[in-house]
Amino acid sequence: MKARISIVLFFFLMFLAVSSARPSAKKKPYKPCKELVLFFHDILYNGKNAGNATSSIVAAPQGSNLTILAGANHFGNIVVFDDPITLDNNLHSPPVGRAQGMYIYDTKNTFTAWLGFSFSLNTTDYQGSINFIGADPILVKSRDISVVGGTGDFFMHRGVASVQTDSYEGEVYFRLRLDIKFYECW
Amino acid sequence: MKARISIVLFFFLMFLAVSSARPSAKKKPYKPCKELVLFFHDILYNGKNAGNATSSIVAAPQGSNLTILAGANHFGNIVVFDDPITLDNNLHSPPVGRAQGMYIYDTKNTFTAWLGFSFSLNTTDYQGSINFIGADPILVKSRDISVVGGTGDFFMHRGVASVQTDSYEGEVYFRLRLDIKFYECW
Amino acid sequence: MKARISIVLFFFLMFLAVSSARPSAKKKPYKPCKELVLFFHDILYNGKNAGNATSSIVAAPQGSNLTILAGANHFGNIVVFDDPITLDNNLHSPPVGRAQGMYIYDTKNTFTAWLGFSFSLNTTDYQGSINFIGADPILVKSRDISVVGGTGDFFMHRGVASVQTDSYEGEVYFRLRLDIKFYECW
Repeated sequence: MKARISIVLFFFLMFLAVSSARPSAKKKPYKPCKELVLFFHDILYNGKNAGNATSSIVAAPQGSNLTILAGANHFGNIVVFDDPITLDNNLHSPPVGRAQGMYIYDTKNTFTAWLGFSFSLNTTDYQGSINFIGADPILVKSRDISVVGGTGDFFMHRGVASVQTDSYEGEVYFRLRLDIKFYECW
Repeated sequence: MKARISIVLFFFLMFLAVSSARPSAKKKPYKPCKELVLFFHDILYNGKNAGNATSSIVAAPQGSNLTILAGANHFGNIVVFDDPITLDNNLHSPPVGRAQGMYIYDTKNTFTAWLGFSFSLNTTDYQGSINFIGADPILVKSRDISVVGGTGDFFMHRGVASVQTDSYEGEVYFRLRLDIKFYECW
Repeated sequence: MKARISIVLFFFLMFLAVSSARPSAKKKPYKPCKELVLFFHDILYNGKNAGNATSSIVAAPQGSNLTILAGANHFGNIVVFDDPITLDNNLHSPPVGRAQGMYIYDTKNTFTAWLGFSFSLNTTDYQGSINFIGADPILVKSRDISVVGGTGDFFMHRGVASVQTDSYEGEVYFRLRLDIKFYECW
């Protein structure tokens, strides 16, 4: 009897091992060693809002200009930004740092972007920078980019950040919610 | 006698240890935990091929324009791309994803580029993104760039990708073969 | 008596544990597994120095041009560079490689940049590339960026590089000193 239980248990464990060898789900079961939820706010320069714009189109494909996003889903536009980071979704909350870098619109038939930017945080809780790289299929509710490094309190950190468009007003204002999960913390 | 053998063995092991301390070869002996060979295809917009172009010059140095690559080995051109990825070297094979991002021509007296891009894969085998950064000395047969992160099935992955120019037709079409070797797989 | 000492010791150790749980210092005590100090030299094209310029403005916000850095702390300028790397601070020392990539001025009210570039080294000591990403608050004496990957002798390396402006002459020449500390060496 005892032997039979052992055999059943053995096959059950085998099954578990095999199932976990090729995970079908996209979310891995790892637990972050640190997690931060932050918002940042982008106000794109459109030729009239120089006073409060936080980003500018600086490159465009042939036939486009630098105050109106390009025609084919903005393909080819590069935008440089210096956006305030807040702890909640209010643009007017006290900023805890700046999100700085660029995004590149990179598809002709839908809205996707390529992101290369850093968070520079300067709060009582966190001092340091977090560096991000990744593809952003904008119309997907939640999309993941890579945390490729960090400095200061984020020294050598790596992780994954889930990006959500928290608000979008025409082509001038958007707000992103980043759920930053570090899996290597040092 | 036994002592002499021990001494010879000792020096031999010392020699092995010292030789391996400064490896001369560029290829490390590590075995990848996952490997993918993929191709992607770039058709540069030249002012006449809007219908099938997959990339556009969006920035150029003074004196150049956005339909002809710049003079001095294209130094200063930034190209944004959205290229189909295939499993073989045929442009017309069913795409398994998109290679999206930018390349920057960054030398005046030879052809080199700086790459920042992502693979977004969407197949039955793989769902997720792979993020690449690196220097690409285009005229070298095989050159290595870094895999700095990934999401989905490539969650937290790191590795090295060997890039080969598989085909090059004038300044409008090129095909790259990427041998992606992951050494951290999670 | 002995018990009291034990209690004092216990609280003292508790205190140590708690203090170290939230490190206030930005520098972590980790020891690098490899370290390199290198300099690179940037001569920006200004319309008159085509012969010896090593970098060019290739993107600018609306209203600016490609030979003069833009008004508001150069916000929105993208510069592509191909700079010689030297072992000391002399521009005319024999180069040991090239620093290639881009920097983006990304703040309106101070000087900060976002860096994406690679070192391609070709010396008797080192053959390979090092890939960097990070925020550069230019006016800070020493600022840290991430080493996100490497190839050749820097296969799979990660680390942090401390950047210092070693010299700055007007808007045409600057020299950076990089203290590259690898904490993952493979």
